[in-house]
Amino acid sequence: MSIRKNNGAKALIKTLTNAGINTCFTNPGTSEMHFVAALDNSDMRAVLCLFEGVATGAADGYARIANKPAATLLHLGCGLGNGLANLHNARKARVPMVNIIGDHALYHKQYDAPLESDIETVARNVSSWIRTCPSTEQVGADVAEAIEVAHKAPQQISTLILPADVSWGEGGIAAEADLSPVTDIAAATLIKQISAVLLTRGKKTAILLGRRVLLEDGLIAASKISEKTGAKLFCEVFPTRLERGAGLPYVERIAYLAEMAAVQLRGYEHLIIIDTQEPVSFFAYPGKKSYLVPSKCSVHHLVGIEQDAVGSLQALVEAVGAGDVEPKCQPADRPALPSGKLNAAKVCQAVGALMPENAIISDEAQTSGLKLPIYTAGAPRHDVLTLTGGAIGQGLPVAIGAAIAGNDGEGTTAEKVHRSVIALVGDGSAMYTIQSLWTMMNENLDVTVVILNNRSYAILNIELERVGAQGAGPKAKSQLDLSKTPIDFVAMAKGMGMPAETVTTAEAFNDALARAIREPGPHLIDAIVPSEYEGLKLKFLPHVLSAIGKIPSPIAKALKKKLAP
Amino acid sequence: MSIRKNNGAKALIKTLTNAGINTCFTNPGTSEMHFVAALDNSDMRAVLCLFEGVATGAADGYARIANKPAATLLHLGCGLGNGLANLHNARKARVPMVNIIGDHALYHKQYDAPLESDIETVARNVSSWIRTCPSTEQVGADVAEAIEVAHKAPQQISTLILPADVSWGEGGIAAEADLSPVTDIAAATLIKQISAVLLTRGKKTAILLGRRVLLEDGLIAASKISEKTGAKLFCEVFPTRLERGAGLPYVERIAYLAEMAAVQLRGYEHLIIIDTQEPVSFFAYPGKKSYLVPSKCSVHHLVGIEQDAVGSLQALVEAVGAGDVEPKCQPADRPALPSGKLNAAKVCQAVGALMPENAIISDEAQTSGLKLPIYTAGAPRHDVLTLTGGAIGQGLPVAIGAAIAGNDGEGTTAEKVHRSVIALVGDGSAMYTIQSLWTMMNENLDVTVVILNNRSYAILNIELERVGAQGAGPKAKSQLDLSKTPIDFVAMAKGMGMPAETVTTAEAFNDALARAIREPGPHLIDAIVPSEYEGLKLKFLPHVLSAIGKIPSPIAKALKKKLAP
Repeated sequence: MSIRKNNGAKALIKTLTNAGINTCFTNPGTSEMHFVAALDNSDMRAVLCLFEGVATGAADGYARIANKPAATLLHLGCGLGNGLANLHNARKARVPMVNIIGDHALYHKQYDAPLESDIETVARNVSSWIRTCPSTEQVGADVAEAIEVAHKAPQQISTLILPADVSWGEGGIAAEADLSPVTDIAAATLIKQISAVLLTRGKKTAILLGRRVLLEDGLIAASKISEKTGAKLFCEVFPTRLERGAGLPYVERIAYLAEMAAVQLRGYEHLIIIDTQEPVSFFAYPGKKSYLVPSKCSVHHLVGIEQDAVGSLQALVEAVGAGDVEPKCQPADRPALPSGKLNAAKVCQAVGALMPENAIISDEAQTSGLKLPIYTAGAPRHDVLTLTGGAIGQGLPVAIGAAIAGNDGEGTTAEKVHRSVIALVGDGSAMYTIQSLWTMMNENLDVTVVILNNRSYAILNIELERVGAQGAGPKAKSQLDLSKTPIDFVAMAKGMGMPAETVTTAEAFNDALARAIREPGPHLIDAIVPSEYEGLKLKFLPHVLSAIGKIPSPIAKALKKKLAP
Repeated sequence: MSIRKNNGAKALIKTLTNAGINTCFTNPGTSEMHFVAALDNSDMRAVLCLFEGVATGAADGYARIANKPAATLLHLGCGLGNGLANLHNARKARVPMVNIIGDHALYHKQYDAPLESDIETVARNVSSWIRTCPSTEQVGADVAEAIEVAHKAPQQISTLILPADVSWGEGGIAAEADLSPVTDIAAATLIKQISAVLLTRGKKTAILLGRRVLLEDGLIAASKISEKTGAKLFCEVFPTRLERGAGLPYVERIAYLAEMAAVQLRGYEHLIIIDTQEPVSFFAYPGKKSYLVPSKCSVHHLVGIEQDAVGSLQALVEAVGAGDVEPKCQPADRPALPSGKLNAAKVCQAVGALMPENAIISDEAQTSGLKLPIYTAGAPRHDVLTLTGGAIGQGLPVAIGAAIAGNDGEGTTAEKVHRSVIALVGDGSAMYTIQSLWTMMNENLDVTVVILNNRSYAILNIELERVGAQGAGPKAKSQLDLSKTPIDFVAMAKGMGMPAETVTTAEAFNDALARAIREPGPHLIDAIVPSEYEGLKLKFLPHVLSAIGKIPSPIAKALKKKLAP
């Protein structure tokens, strides 16, 4: 085979597409112009984003659904900086991604030009594999290594810095990345030990599932073990991707509020953790525990992050003799359509009532989404993508990538499954990366954006009290309040060409949601909802949460007792 | 004096306000709630921003006008990441700033909670002084040191990381920062040597002024030297803050395009640089020079970055015997109001015709602003703030900070000078930090936002050719084109409550600008202008630039010769 040489940019793109990475989320500048020019004679789809945080979040959403790395193209250290928060979310989610960061020409760096900065240092927080490509000849090999690192367990973000002269130089050689799957499973002795715990202490054992085992094969396996042994199934607080709905096993998510999570985990003597971390509080609070595993509970990790989690879980199924056990799957059961004045719970109810089969939910509804898991548990099968790293401004960008990956399949049109995306986003969250709406329009994506607009940073009203910051006056409260200058998301959407409407009743929301799902292209619904927890004392929280169905009432009772003065 | 102890947050705020830092641009989260709660019994004004890049850019604009450090309050490493691009601009501008970054409680960091990241590493690119405050007792002393580092030459960004438990702990002691001015001036031998160059080779000498010497006192001193010796005065490409207009000396800015800058500097045998760097190309281009000082030109730096630049320049005035020389100041001379179909040059003309005395221009108009310096040269005295680090998305946030600093003076109402802010921003640029409009409304700032809306990344159309990326096809061009999904900035502004209008004629623009300046509060004008350089071959650029008055025709002729095939 003759080796075709190209400029660096062409060799780079060819190496990416050789590995099946055919989508790149971009915000290019001068140093990336050769990459841009090389797009035309390539199989790469370049999705322009007007802000880098949109590009990185979209790449994250893409990779979660496509189950292969996405690529980004960003401009120098500042472009990477703008994308950092959503790269943090992707890192915490262990999402595979390849960042291509254009840099000044190597010989230009000595001059400390205005945009000069230390890109490797910026990348260090989100990437453990970082390389500045030193020569055009090296581009193909370097990007192949970047792809391999991103792909293999533990999946991660690799960052290749591409100096402009390396990109425009001639002599690039495209390479082939090794994409062989991970097959290393947990040691037989460990599986035996954990199966013994399950078989002897099953009802006092909880299994906490994370990341890769939250897809169908993992859930089915976990359910078989649960049915055989009586062990309780939990899911990590913010799953990367959770397959759920009718026909799949139901797992209870650990609550965001540590007070509630502690109650969920109380009484278990063994905690088996599969492909996630030991549960800890999201933040620290004065006088409260950060580590949420009960003091007398033994922790067992089934796999290390470099092992095959699903394969190990399936080995555990065999070890407990559950191979022939029927998993317990959720029956199909949708809620009725809501009616009356709209609130956040009714939004969740309508989503449960109307979401189509194979929908993807990008969930950044914060306080407004508490009832979503309950109302969608028996809805048609769907995926939920959540705020894995806690850095808000992820929900809209993730929806972009998910919509592209979900409708980008190969095969004939008849074989293709249409995947509608519903992004549930709080008003405060939406504003971090509102430029996402433009890319949804520019790419004509089937995304329904629901803004749960309570005109506040509602979650911070709770947090202000949780941290014990007493006596907040008007200056403090104004830091959490968006109501003095209310945001009209319909106008914002129209500013970027997107059809949009404001709704204040459940009936209007039902109609708007059904229409948005039915009609092609993106839509936005500005759902005006009350701030449910405004002025709420923390001690009343369990009652409220119980009343809206988030937690079963025994948990509410326990919480009430725990939180009593 | 008895020492009052407080919690860490209160000691921190008190130390800031003790040093006159009474404005903080914020985007807080849970780890900053004690800072938020401490605002009420303090003299601190907290300006809420809906995105961290707005907060950091606003702090930059504030410091440029207030001539004292601004503070930011950001949430963990991700919040800092979102603010990084505008911190880069501030770093390159050597703007004093104190970042307060909330972190998890010290004891919580071991648990690798979702938002855990290495904040010090994120900060490293923009701050040389970074400290994680280890104890509540230490807060006051640490923030005082942060202020001192930010304040003293070379001014810079200091970053104090404040763990939540250090913030909520009791025992904080407010401190006093040392704010004594820098008085170290250039060595007498160096001044003597440079004055000899000026007195013997004045007409073959150019003086390149930067940063601190671009305010009135520096400009007057430089003009005296120029008048005495015949030396030419230049100003750096992207000044931090340039005082200009009628009654002040005019200095010619070095052009962004290296091809033009090289012509501006041609023929000079000596280049005296004062408080800036040697001129280099913004980016590298194949086969073109990065370093723009002519090969036979000697470079003389008058001051080091830690010295008093204005004091040194004034010493040079005395050394060349120009103490009694009259500076050459710009006469008052406004252009006529433009008429007919609107274009970018006419926008600049109208600004020159209508801008009020003491206006502040935040200039991120990119290609659309080329004619601004000519049309405003004789306008009433004003300040221009520019894109110092090249990271776009700065113009709107800087306008926020400038409007607050410009109208925040102490003294009686009668003494106060009103400072109207005009932000000239390209459409592509505006979208990076469009959330700025919300803060302008929420704080009711006198900012007129002019969007120069050419529906493209126009500058990249030039750059695509400059880097020699030939044969761009439809995929490449779509990366630079915003016209398929045009952005309606009037709708965007209305989404955040801001009065706005679209204009397509010069007459309508004149009316809209006059009204926006006259009426209190923020306004947005969506100025639809053609993309002047679309499809333009680089070799024609000098003709175009000359035709619109950017460069005198001898330069255009030289450029034409230089660029001829």
